[in-house]
Amino acid sequence: MSGPVIAVDWGTSSFRAYRLDAQGGIAERRESAGGILRVRGGDFAAALQAEVGDWLAAAPDALVVMSGMIGSRQGWREVPYVACPAEPEEIAAGLERVDWGEGEAWIVPGLLDESRPGQPDVMRGEETQVLGALAALPNGGGLVCLPGTHSKWVRVESGVLQSFATYMTGEVFDLLQGHSILSRLMTKGAVAVDRWFLEGVAVGQGGGLLNRLFSARSRALTGNLPEDAVRSYLSGLLIGDELASAVPAAPTEVHLLGAPTLAALYEAALAKLGHSVVRLDADAVAVGLHGLAGHLDAAGRAP
Amino acid sequence: MSGPVIAVDWGTSSFRAYRLDAQGGIAERRESAGGILRVRGGDFAAALQAEVGDWLAAAPDALVVMSGMIGSRQGWREVPYVACPAEPEEIAAGLERVDWGEGEAWIVPGLLDESRPGQPDVMRGEETQVLGALAALPNGGGLVCLPGTHSKWVRVESGVLQSFATYMTGEVFDLLQGHSILSRLMTKGAVAVDRWFLEGVAVGQGGGLLNRLFSARSRALTGNLPEDAVRSYLSGLLIGDELASAVPAAPTEVHLLGAPTLAALYEAALAKLGHSVVRLDADAVAVGLHGLAGHLDAAGRAP
Repeated sequence: MSGPVIAVDWGTSSFRAYRLDAQGGIAERRESAGGILRVRGGDFAAALQAEVGDWLAAAPDALVVMSGMIGSRQGWREVPYVACPAEPEEIAAGLERVDWGEGEAWIVPGLLDESRPGQPDVMRGEETQVLGALAALPNGGGLVCLPGTHSKWVRVESGVLQSFATYMTGEVFDLLQGHSILSRLMTKGAVAVDRWFLEGVAVGQGGGLLNRLFSARSRALTGNLPEDAVRSYLSGLLIGDELASAVPAAPTEVHLLGAPTLAALYEAALAKLGHSVVRLDADAVAVGLHGLAGHLDAAGRAP
Repeated sequence: MSGPVIAVDWGTSSFRAYRLDAQGGIAERRESAGGILRVRGGDFAAALQAEVGDWLAAAPDALVVMSGMIGSRQGWREVPYVACPAEPEEIAAGLERVDWGEGEAWIVPGLLDESRPGQPDVMRGEETQVLGALAALPNGGGLVCLPGTHSKWVRVESGVLQSFATYMTGEVFDLLQGHSILSRLMTKGAVAVDRWFLEGVAVGQGGGLLNRLFSARSRALTGNLPEDAVRSYLSGLLIGDELASAVPAAPTEVHLLGAPTLAALYEAALAKLGHSVVRLDADAVAVGLHGLAGHLDAAGRAP
């Protein structure tokens, strides 16, 4: 690796950047709400300058590598998906360069999984986080969970991203707590990892989610659920339904990669169901982007 | 039955009334958006006057019988639930009178099903629709589906409402089509009973709803679902998930009670899965309310 790297995780609603030294160490980090939907008139070059222009000025030869929705149709440049199973080299080979007259910037491709007939799945950004966590997986393999608005479950074997599945758990939770008949029952507050959350996880195991959701209301109406517990119970229900589908029934080791608050919910739910959890570095995306920059350098900065 | 009855189905967001003759025939009907949430300052007496004051003036001795959320905590008077299994006589015995100085008005109790531990279920209004449909059920029994914002599935045996389950299918569909990442993919239009709807029903059979929902997006992104079909596919997915849980796998006769447009979706989905469908009269609530009025009269207008 020859020079400094600016690693950017540019999603729909957030912008995260790391200034990395030549060894990949995080020299500085930065985060904003400047996701791609906030970029005016599609001027991503100006947006990137506004976010990290000082870093670029200080290191004009820095290699900028970006992952996430910045590579989608709504982003700077639509970079075609790489099909699963995908090796790190295949993902690196899919990198595409953007011309912006300000040094060198590349965008990471997303992944496409077409292994289930009629149910293709896609991701943009999480593949780079998993790449950054490969070294922490035993023999480069395991089941990786990235909780979020759209949770991703990635099956990795010998360093190859084999397959994955997306769950809209976070988004459905936000809709239900914000706009549904259940909202009216809820007191203010955050989700707690308490007996009501775990009760929701247990009830969520039974399938028939559209029915079980209503139990948040009927239990509250009949005095079987305190009003200040509805939010945690609902969160448990949804995560429980996700886990019933995403994790095998037999005790399984799950590698969790995500922000601490959300990861804590998944860890508690997985433990309740008898699974074991290993937490991965939440900054894995910086490691993944640095590794991809290394591939670029090794290839003479061609993908 | 001695006199005229005004039958009122008063829900959260709608008001439906029938002026019935002494034999229970529908002489006139009326419908408005004046659900209980629209009633200012909780003045339900004034609201009822505004809706059917002319009927009352023409027949001051009419018996007003009301079902639905009007009997909830947010309604005119909270009428305690009757527990399942519930016979028509038990429901009639739970009727409560409201005093409003304008003749006689009664509210029907809701039903409570506590047969599944930790998953109590409640309804207000649908029990009266089922009562009105009992005569149409073979030997007074069968599986009755009332599709809606919150679909209800009621198991009836020998004229007794044995048990039931609620599915939040309609509400979740509205949230997803109105406020989710899927909304952006959708073109305008209504749900159609077409191959995409039926494809959604099939995919919805597989469980893991939070994952399958995302297929509406990933299929559209990968060209496996036309944009103008996302809405129908999503509707099929949700109804498919509901049916996978609500109906036994073996071919089953389902009695459908609901508005024609929504009932048509359920009928197509049930047929696709090999079940048979019998449509019940969508005005069954008027029959049910007339029957309860008969119980009141037989009991000397005591419940």
